[in-house]
Amino acid sequence: MNCAGAKLTGPGADMDEYKTLREEAFEANLEIKKQNLAIHTWGNVSAFDPARGVFAIKPSGVAYEELKPESMVLVDLEGKIVSGNLKPSSDTRTHQVLYREFPGIRGITHTHSPYAVAWAQANRSVPVFGTTHADQMTGEIICTGFISPEALKKDYELETGKLIVETFRKNNLNSADITMVLVAGHGPFTWGGSASQSVYHAAALEEICKMALLTLTIDPHAKPLPEYIVKKHWERKHGPDAYYGQNKTD
Amino acid sequence: MNCAGAKLTGPGADMDEYKTLREEAFEANLEIKKQNLAIHTWGNVSAFDPARGVFAIKPSGVAYEELKPESMVLVDLEGKIVSGNLKPSSDTRTHQVLYREFPGIRGITHTHSPYAVAWAQANRSVPVFGTTHADQMTGEIICTGFISPEALKKDYELETGKLIVETFRKNNLNSADITMVLVAGHGPFTWGGSASQSVYHAAALEEICKMALLTLTIDPHAKPLPEYIVKKHWERKHGPDAYYGQNKTD
Amino acid sequence: MNCAGAKLTGPGADMDEYKTLREEAFEANLEIKKQNLAIHTWGNVSAFDPARGVFAIKPSGVAYEELKPESMVLVDLEGKIVSGNLKPSSDTRTHQVLYREFPGIRGITHTHSPYAVAWAQANRSVPVFGTTHADQMTGEIICTGFISPEALKKDYELETGKLIVETFRKNNLNSADITMVLVAGHGPFTWGGSASQSVYHAAALEEICKMALLTLTIDPHAKPLPEYIVKKHWERKHGPDAYYGQNKTD
Amino acid sequence: MNCAGAKLTGPGADMDEYKTLREEAFEANLEIKKQNLAIHTWGNVSAFDPARGVFAIKPSGVAYEELKPESMVLVDLEGKIVSGNLKPSSDTRTHQVLYREFPGIRGITHTHSPYAVAWAQANRSVPVFGTTHADQMTGEIICTGFISPEALKKDYELETGKLIVETFRKNNLNSADITMVLVAGHGPFTWGGSASQSVYHAAALEEICKMALLTLTIDPHAKPLPEYIVKKHWERKHGPDAYYGQNKTD
Repeated sequence: MNCAGAKLTGPGADMDEYKTLREEAFEANLEIKKQNLAIHTWGNVSAFDPARGVFAIKPSGVAYEELKPESMVLVDLEGKIVSGNLKPSSDTRTHQVLYREFPGIRGITHTHSPYAVAWAQANRSVPVFGTTHADQMTGEIICTGFISPEALKKDYELETGKLIVETFRKNNLNSADITMVLVAGHGPFTWGGSASQSVYHAAALEEICKMALLTLTIDPHAKPLPEYIVKKHWERKHGPDAYYGQNKTD
Repeated sequence: MNCAGAKLTGPGADMDEYKTLREEAFEANLEIKKQNLAIHTWGNVSAFDPARGVFAIKPSGVAYEELKPESMVLVDLEGKIVSGNLKPSSDTRTHQVLYREFPGIRGITHTHSPYAVAWAQANRSVPVFGTTHADQMTGEIICTGFISPEALKKDYELETGKLIVETFRKNNLNSADITMVLVAGHGPFTWGGSASQSVYHAAALEEICKMALLTLTIDPHAKPLPEYIVKKHWERKHGPDAYYGQNKTD
Repeated sequence: MNCAGAKLTGPGADMDEYKTLREEAFEANLEIKKQNLAIHTWGNVSAFDPARGVFAIKPSGVAYEELKPESMVLVDLEGKIVSGNLKPSSDTRTHQVLYREFPGIRGITHTHSPYAVAWAQANRSVPVFGTTHADQMTGEIICTGFISPEALKKDYELETGKLIVETFRKNNLNSADITMVLVAGHGPFTWGGSASQSVYHAAALEEICKMALLTLTIDPHAKPLPEYIVKKHWERKHGPDAYYGQNKTD
Repeated sequence: MNCAGAKLTGPGADMDEYKTLREEAFEANLEIKKQNLAIHTWGNVSAFDPARGVFAIKPSGVAYEELKPESMVLVDLEGKIVSGNLKPSSDTRTHQVLYREFPGIRGITHTHSPYAVAWAQANRSVPVFGTTHADQMTGEIICTGFISPEALKKDYELETGKLIVETFRKNNLNSADITMVLVAGHGPFTWGGSASQSVYHAAALEEICKMALLTLTIDPHAKPLPEYIVKKHWERKHGPDAYYGQNKTD
């Protein structure tokens, strides 16, 4: 697939316009490999620019080693390609729905990392077994139901996005606080304030899923962490009086 | 084993004739190590040229680090060595049968990757637990029965090839769509449109086998993916209207 | 987070005073990554100077790749920052309590290594299943109870330190002999005669926890190692007539 | 521990005499790390010269990164140090017994690789679940009983060697064909025609132990490979008509 480095032509050929966004998406896609989150081409990241309403996403089926910033495809929130000669990731329409429905997110990652996939294949939400999980979020990593045959026939990837959004609404989950989900029988989607942060969450999710599986291996009846510890851990990292990390004004 | 780099002499000494085929097999064998699919020399790849009816295969027991393109052994479909001074892989006759019986395949990989071997040792076909699997094929990764004592006595490796072919026929499987198999108590064989693609399938198989085992660890009674999702995933990647990857004409 | 390399100013700006201690803590923090004990920033190491009553610790939330010796934060045993412009690890007060209560320790490591976390999440002490464990200590790797809601409200990290100390007292454990603990639902803390030795113990703990989990996978009813072998192994490495390793006077 | 590179003095100072043997042991010890068979210093290899009746072994507790050929310690079959200023591995007397009792072996490896240790800790011999195992040997990888309190008091490491030898005699095992053993509650010892070959066997053992554990995870009642296939695999690699690998006379 030597097409990955193809020169841009047509309406989006002016590189400068989307240069930064392409580069952000490009760098974040390389992180999938560096952080060992997928073999082959089994993962994709996009970076979103809300001012223009477009996101840059990995081209479909192109190896990470062959990617260049200019191989990223620019897509708007209607799913129209606005720049790029390659076909975007087959999961593009799922990204599109999430950018439309989850306010404030700027990056999305989808992988087939094995522990996260195992929970999705077992069709189970991941209980909060410990503080590693609670550092990320206060509740289970929720697993959606299976997509319905009707939804699948309409537009599989678009409806997968809708399924995620619906699952969040039904369960009163806030996409600003909870930045990861498992799609039943499929695998994880994560998001964040940037493309790079969405990959960070994808790696955190994989590690939490591994720890949870190992916990069940030791004790199949392991109980979730007491609620008051869950709350404390999340608050020290994300609450109004969070004291984890460095202040931006330092 | 310094014999790996031995100069070619005899009937096949003319390097030019099979240069490309040897190089293809050589590169693909190195991928076994790069993709972490076998320790020691526990894996071999061959590349087939249907026009000449010969395949290039790894020499038996030679470390990947010592391989050179010229150490590849050229074998015809009767199992006769047509070029090369080294002994071919002990699994050569299994490759030979598959090239003879499975139309259109151009590369074969055999490894002892641990998760695939575990399913073979448990003598179980791998259920389609998720879309990662369905992206590759629409049914279980089938595990053959054990080779019979009679077949084993005749010609073990040749009969192993026949066992695979028979298993496919009995189960109405198409070797063009289903590019992997587990031999009971032994391990995986995969194939494809090139040597390199057969290694790609070997890595995919190993990852799917790992995911399936982890799924059972979370839920020993995990159910396969609903049939309509299986079909959709396979079709979006391999069906007549496939939309995964880049068109060759791009 | 480019603040990691910020120049020192204010009362602790004189680098020379704590140079060695900072460097020791810095080098030991890098070992977390080298020895594969945490993803992201999920681990921290401190180095203690008992003469001055201060320890150098990793700044909170800063990536290991961005650390420099001068980004280490100097904290005294009351928890006061004595040098450094960054905020210290959120776990600082746990380190502080351990340095105050466990005589002779000079380094502490906290990680979220997955196998150790799994035992902590299962809320189980790790039985002495073999000599690998007995080489480190003669008893179980103890898991504390959960921190109480009252303690958590007072000062979570300080109380976590107290919980560890209490657990050791109640169980008559000696922090000189037993250099590791699991905090229920959270993860491991290890210590030693230097920062580097505490990381050594963190890696030993992770490996022992992995081996113990694998042992239970083979036999859920596996029995601990007979007591007389446990004692022998510990003594040959740590007893008065220890004969493992090289004498310092060699 | 900077003593690892100490200059040789005293009776064994003449480097030339044992140069080759030291280098063989040195290189093989480095393989422990390269093949990922132990963390820290949890493994040791020795190389034996039957003509002189001495073996070169890793010094105790010295990191692999600090080893040099001249840090290897030369020991005779009575356990006397014949050259070297460092203390030999604490397991030296186990090596000594095996060289004395198992005819023809030239190298021994001991590690704490986690899957092999898990089987030893579960106190279980590893069934022949597949051809990967049968390629190495025709029977279970036997696990000894626990060393008796009396034997332990006498001379722990020497008696560990005797326990291995006894286990082989009682079970009519031939140390030429079966090159690996698990010591109950402790871990693996492997041997071979050279130090390097003994490490090869240590890696093979670890992989086989991993595969066997994964097999039980899929099916806790998995059955061993039929006997006729076991025999065939071993014979094609080690029998009088073996056809695996390259002939030495090639």
